[in-house]
Amino acid sequence: MNERMPSPSRPKPGGGPLRSSVPEGPLTRFTGEVLPAFEAALAASVTAPAGLTPVVEMALRRAVGVEGAPGSRWRPLLTLAAARAAGGTVEAAIPAAVAVELTHTASLVLDDLPCMDDAADRRGVPSTHLQVGTGGAILVALALLGRAAELLGRVPGEGGALASSWGEAFGLAGMSGGQAVDLTGAFMQGGAPRRLHRKKTTSLSSLALEAGARCAGAEVETRDALVRFGRDLGWAYQLADDVQDWKEDGRLGKGAGGRSPRAQSERLLGRAIRHLETAPGLDAEGRLLLEALARKAAGFPLAGEARQWA
Amino acid sequence: MNERMPSPSRPKPGGGPLRSSVPEGPLTRFTGEVLPAFEAALAASVTAPAGLTPVVEMALRRAVGVEGAPGSRWRPLLTLAAARAAGGTVEAAIPAAVAVELTHTASLVLDDLPCMDDAADRRGVPSTHLQVGTGGAILVALALLGRAAELLGRVPGEGGALASSWGEAFGLAGMSGGQAVDLTGAFMQGGAPRRLHRKKTTSLSSLALEAGARCAGAEVETRDALVRFGRDLGWAYQLADDVQDWKEDGRLGKGAGGRSPRAQSERLLGRAIRHLETAPGLDAEGRLLLEALARKAAGFPLAGEARQWA
Repeated sequence: MNERMPSPSRPKPGGGPLRSSVPEGPLTRFTGEVLPAFEAALAASVTAPAGLTPVVEMALRRAVGVEGAPGSRWRPLLTLAAARAAGGTVEAAIPAAVAVELTHTASLVLDDLPCMDDAADRRGVPSTHLQVGTGGAILVALALLGRAAELLGRVPGEGGALASSWGEAFGLAGMSGGQAVDLTGAFMQGGAPRRLHRKKTTSLSSLALEAGARCAGAEVETRDALVRFGRDLGWAYQLADDVQDWKEDGRLGKGAGGRSPRAQSERLLGRAIRHLETAPGLDAEGRLLLEALARKAAGFPLAGEARQWA
Repeated sequence: MNERMPSPSRPKPGGGPLRSSVPEGPLTRFTGEVLPAFEAALAASVTAPAGLTPVVEMALRRAVGVEGAPGSRWRPLLTLAAARAAGGTVEAAIPAAVAVELTHTASLVLDDLPCMDDAADRRGVPSTHLQVGTGGAILVALALLGRAAELLGRVPGEGGALASSWGEAFGLAGMSGGQAVDLTGAFMQGGAPRRLHRKKTTSLSSLALEAGARCAGAEVETRDALVRFGRDLGWAYQLADDVQDWKEDGRLGKGAGGRSPRAQSERLLGRAIRHLETAPGLDAEGRLLLEALARKAAGFPLAGEARQWA
């Protein structure tokens, strides 16, 4: 993956060079510390009620990756890291982090449907609709969203605000609107459709950070800076993901703005990290952890890194 | 609709006879008073963001019936009537009532999909998927749910609890689970699948009442009684609806318990109304209004009634 290596010596217009010296160690320690509790809470969130066939529960478990290959979990890790960086505890943010991953999973289940991207497999197993049918997959996605609402609504003191932000994030001005523009190809017109298209990805990464900030009881200035960090990171991630898709399609080239998608992604990641640097109320260790997570999510390797995320 | 006329002289085992003297007047005055503000808030809730074609917004407006024929609105009317009966204001309950109707509409949009009930029209217009495609209809349903979460989450002081109950209502232990059991026909096995199947309908009618109670700041005993009222009413409604379906299919007969679905529906409606009678903290006028709404929703006519709801 040498083509994903940043060039720290080249200045980035409007972005500033990315540091190349963010170490892997603290992130590895953090994930090792928090992921077991997160995975346990995630598994507990996808049980099915009596009256359904075991096939449904298995489809839920596979969809969220507690059965089979887990995802990278970078979105919920952002929630947990943001909560700690803003002076809260990881423990208090776990339900919200689970809700973020459930929401992401619902979007994958729906994206894979024959009427959307028509994908046959996901996370190493057949897509949900190939396990439980198209109708079943839609109900699995609703189940995931319903559980996310339950978890977010119960966050002490912030449940209403979180549920409201979450509804906006997956609604028509967020993920669903972005997917609608994606589905019809209208985003290629530029302008408003293109801006809406970005929200397919940026809405949930913003929400992941907002959730962490709210669970930590962060000040509004801290929360806003984290949300901006999440939005730019989501966009950087999407561009990096597009590079991957285009490479697979054999049509890698310059983006609409004349800059390669890879360079645009790096510029956005730099901007995301600057939001962290100017955010009040974050401790230095937490800030570095968020930066490391962001770099890794967007496909920029860390110093001493053993492996890339898928 | 003579076959829907109750027989007040015949005692109902475990249910008690339904009064035949509930007047139409107060309900007509109430709906005339509250529906304009409700419809305006509903219409305002289904605007689409810039970047989408006008077709999407039209599909949303038609789905909720602010364009074309509106639904009976009995679920949101229950929310509004419960709020008033429990000492609150209709005004404070309107956003929650809108959320209830949006959630109901999302379930209709999804139920009509080719992979579910495959229905060609709804509320007098082509089904949503025939306007915007199957993928588009799924996104419209998500848009409706997202907006419902936004509205519920913002209810002062009760947003978190409402969002959490709402997530449970449309999740796998509620509407989605009930629909899953419906889809596979597993409910005919009886037992747990049959109990889950009921929640397809009872979850949302319970939520409609809980929402009204919470918006009014009702005591927990009042709220619980209203939730039980909503659950039994939802079940009575479903049975009455089944009678209609079975009549259309020409196979009207006795239910599984040896009692006709119509008689079962009447018994449940009687039980629902008794929950109202024993609920603390409801004023007499509000109680009568809820009873009138319940009778009308379940297809039992009121004294002096001009027309039945569809």
